[in-house]
Amino acid sequence: MMPRPHSRLVMKFGGTSVADMTRIRRAAELVAAEVKAGKAVAVVVSAMAGVTNQYVTWTDVAGPPAPGLGDGEDEYDVVVSSGEQVTAGLMTMVLRNLGVASRSWLGWQVPIHTDTGHGHARITGVEADTLGPAIDQGVVAVVPGFQGLGADGRITTLGRGGSDTTAVALAAALHAPCDIYTDVDGVYTTDPRVEPKARRLAQVCYPEMLEMAAMGAKVLAARAVELAYAHQVPVRVLSSFSEPGQPRGGTWILNEDQIMEHRLVSAVAHSLDEAKVTLRHLPDHPGTAARIFDALGAADINVDMIVQARSEAQARADLAFSVGRRDARKAMNAVKAAQEAIGFSEVLLDEGVAKVSVIGVGMRSHAGVAQTLFATLAAQKINVQAISTSEIKISVLVDEAQAESAVKALHAAYGLAEVSTQNCAATP
Amino acid sequence: MMPRPHSRLVMKFGGTSVADMTRIRRAAELVAAEVKAGKAVAVVVSAMAGVTNQYVTWTDVAGPPAPGLGDGEDEYDVVVSSGEQVTAGLMTMVLRNLGVASRSWLGWQVPIHTDTGHGHARITGVEADTLGPAIDQGVVAVVPGFQGLGADGRITTLGRGGSDTTAVALAAALHAPCDIYTDVDGVYTTDPRVEPKARRLAQVCYPEMLEMAAMGAKVLAARAVELAYAHQVPVRVLSSFSEPGQPRGGTWILNEDQIMEHRLVSAVAHSLDEAKVTLRHLPDHPGTAARIFDALGAADINVDMIVQARSEAQARADLAFSVGRRDARKAMNAVKAAQEAIGFSEVLLDEGVAKVSVIGVGMRSHAGVAQTLFATLAAQKINVQAISTSEIKISVLVDEAQAESAVKALHAAYGLAEVSTQNCAATP
Repeated sequence: MMPRPHSRLVMKFGGTSVADMTRIRRAAELVAAEVKAGKAVAVVVSAMAGVTNQYVTWTDVAGPPAPGLGDGEDEYDVVVSSGEQVTAGLMTMVLRNLGVASRSWLGWQVPIHTDTGHGHARITGVEADTLGPAIDQGVVAVVPGFQGLGADGRITTLGRGGSDTTAVALAAALHAPCDIYTDVDGVYTTDPRVEPKARRLAQVCYPEMLEMAAMGAKVLAARAVELAYAHQVPVRVLSSFSEPGQPRGGTWILNEDQIMEHRLVSAVAHSLDEAKVTLRHLPDHPGTAARIFDALGAADINVDMIVQARSEAQARADLAFSVGRRDARKAMNAVKAAQEAIGFSEVLLDEGVAKVSVIGVGMRSHAGVAQTLFATLAAQKINVQAISTSEIKISVLVDEAQAESAVKALHAAYGLAEVSTQNCAATP
Repeated sequence: MMPRPHSRLVMKFGGTSVADMTRIRRAAELVAAEVKAGKAVAVVVSAMAGVTNQYVTWTDVAGPPAPGLGDGEDEYDVVVSSGEQVTAGLMTMVLRNLGVASRSWLGWQVPIHTDTGHGHARITGVEADTLGPAIDQGVVAVVPGFQGLGADGRITTLGRGGSDTTAVALAAALHAPCDIYTDVDGVYTTDPRVEPKARRLAQVCYPEMLEMAAMGAKVLAARAVELAYAHQVPVRVLSSFSEPGQPRGGTWILNEDQIMEHRLVSAVAHSLDEAKVTLRHLPDHPGTAARIFDALGAADINVDMIVQARSEAQARADLAFSVGRRDARKAMNAVKAAQEAIGFSEVLLDEGVAKVSVIGVGMRSHAGVAQTLFATLAAQKINVQAISTSEIKISVLVDEAQAESAVKALHAAYGLAEVSTQNCAATP
């Protein structure tokens, strides 16, 4: 490897952090401060908030392709990727206006290679051979997030969380840490809008952040966390609304062994984007569940939690499962189409449910986390409708109206309001 | 050359012809009609009217680069080129929605090679090896105008009239004619807003169109005409506001030998973007004029007409010249800075002047055109302040307030209201 005169850094600014020219200038000042501090910087930018929505509206008006003419996602990518392109050019211009040498590299220029999954492409490789030496020589590289160069030689976009993913992939290629600038100043023990006692976490480990992202925390896309975990990229979440050079809090996302002290539970997450589908009076014989989940799988529906209930007196049982709310109608249609094969009597849809999750790597080595959870919810008279667990997470499905009180009660029960944001390990 | 199953056609739509999704759909219907008629079509699109202005405003707010960090034109190109990219994607989507197989090729994908003159790049070559066979196989190629791939591997833009130039260059590479769709239905004998008796010309030849574009007719960029002339591309100007498949008038721009019958004068053009600078009391010795035009040349100012006047009684003369109105202040500053070397007593600026031109290849072989012009203006009591001529054009500088009556009088004097738009040669 070539010697690096400066330590490298990737800085990513999301849509609200580059929403207008004033915000872009503020973001550029944060970049300039890092350059002044001796960093070799690559910047990844999102589209200005609102711009992409305008483009998406236009593509909706354009209408779907006639039969036989593809799915239109390739041209959708041509249209929407230009939002990030505009920000990249503007950010570079403002940086130069501030006296910072800089240049934009579009996805096809870096290049950021992807597969041909237009609209939801996956990054297959990032070439840093040009960009790396350029930033080491003091030229800030500005790269539009969300876009890549498909194996078909065309522009691709990465889908949801794309710009976070671009930033982490670029950081991996540059062997640099990645600062994600957003409209909050870090990762919290729970949503501060629900529980004002929520505290910012100074550090969380990759597996916890993955669960938190998957369970509804919106601060960082799960696929970006996954990529950071796989490539061991240290990621920090920071507020772009703070002053350049001033302490800005922030949350480091690191390996478990880089975190000094583990808490039993790090965070309580919740998601209102849930729905519950209940099939009544299923025949109680082998293969029934398989037929249900075959039908859902064929419709590309991701089932989260499953509960089977059978009353002793009957030979028939009920089965309930939860899905993302936007998949609820599709799930209803899929099981109804298979009603004869499955053999249920009726199907019910409940969109008034929420998922509440407690997350922490500490629960791997400590018993009692689940017990505290159920005791706490019982004390609040909150009925648990379904449960799912992983090694470091317990999720429960509850009535939507009780979700906030569940979050508050659990936040208190695990002592999260007392988490200090100061006593953690220093930056890596 | 490979055999071509269809005859090829390039269709170009300007900013007002793709101003919104309704206009884009109308343009796509015009494309679909040509495809249905058996044409192999490449489409060149401008940015949606207004979009580029928004981008330019943002780049203005970004401010100029700090000293030593270049002129910023490279990043300006990154920002503004995305306007055409958006239209290209949307046009392709609408074409597919209408059942027309199509695909966008961005400037760097065709590629349209240019030099590195960011903001005003010149096309150095167009590769049609991929695009040509694609359209021959029935896939409409949609190409954003105004943009190219610079020799530095970056996005360039072509400056004023860029999309017309892209269309003609692509037509040259595809050995195809080029239809320019705009908000008027052709080239007129004069501006119909000034003279309602103006008639659409069925045909004009390249040299006439070049003079007309240079003399103020805005229907087609002069550099695009120049390129069409050099590569012998038949160009037609048409209205995008007409019905698909319906007769749409139009003006063919062709070689002189393809035009059946030449008129003495084809058109009267006028431009209000003029200014006159007068230097008083110049020393009457050799080298004075050279010093004036050296100073103006060094300031990159294009001088159009020049008049020198000397009264018999004096050893000192006056000199007046005309420049584009946007260069007037710069011209004043340039001559003032050289006042001592030149030796004039005072300098006067008159921004209330206009240029009126009569254009026609017929005047090469016919005397009397100039005579008619001066007699007509004299009869209207219009004072001619300066004159310039070419082989096929006579321009005069007049008081701005008299420009419209000069246009009307000359239009009548050369019988242009009686020009038939029907009795010309058929399409090539």
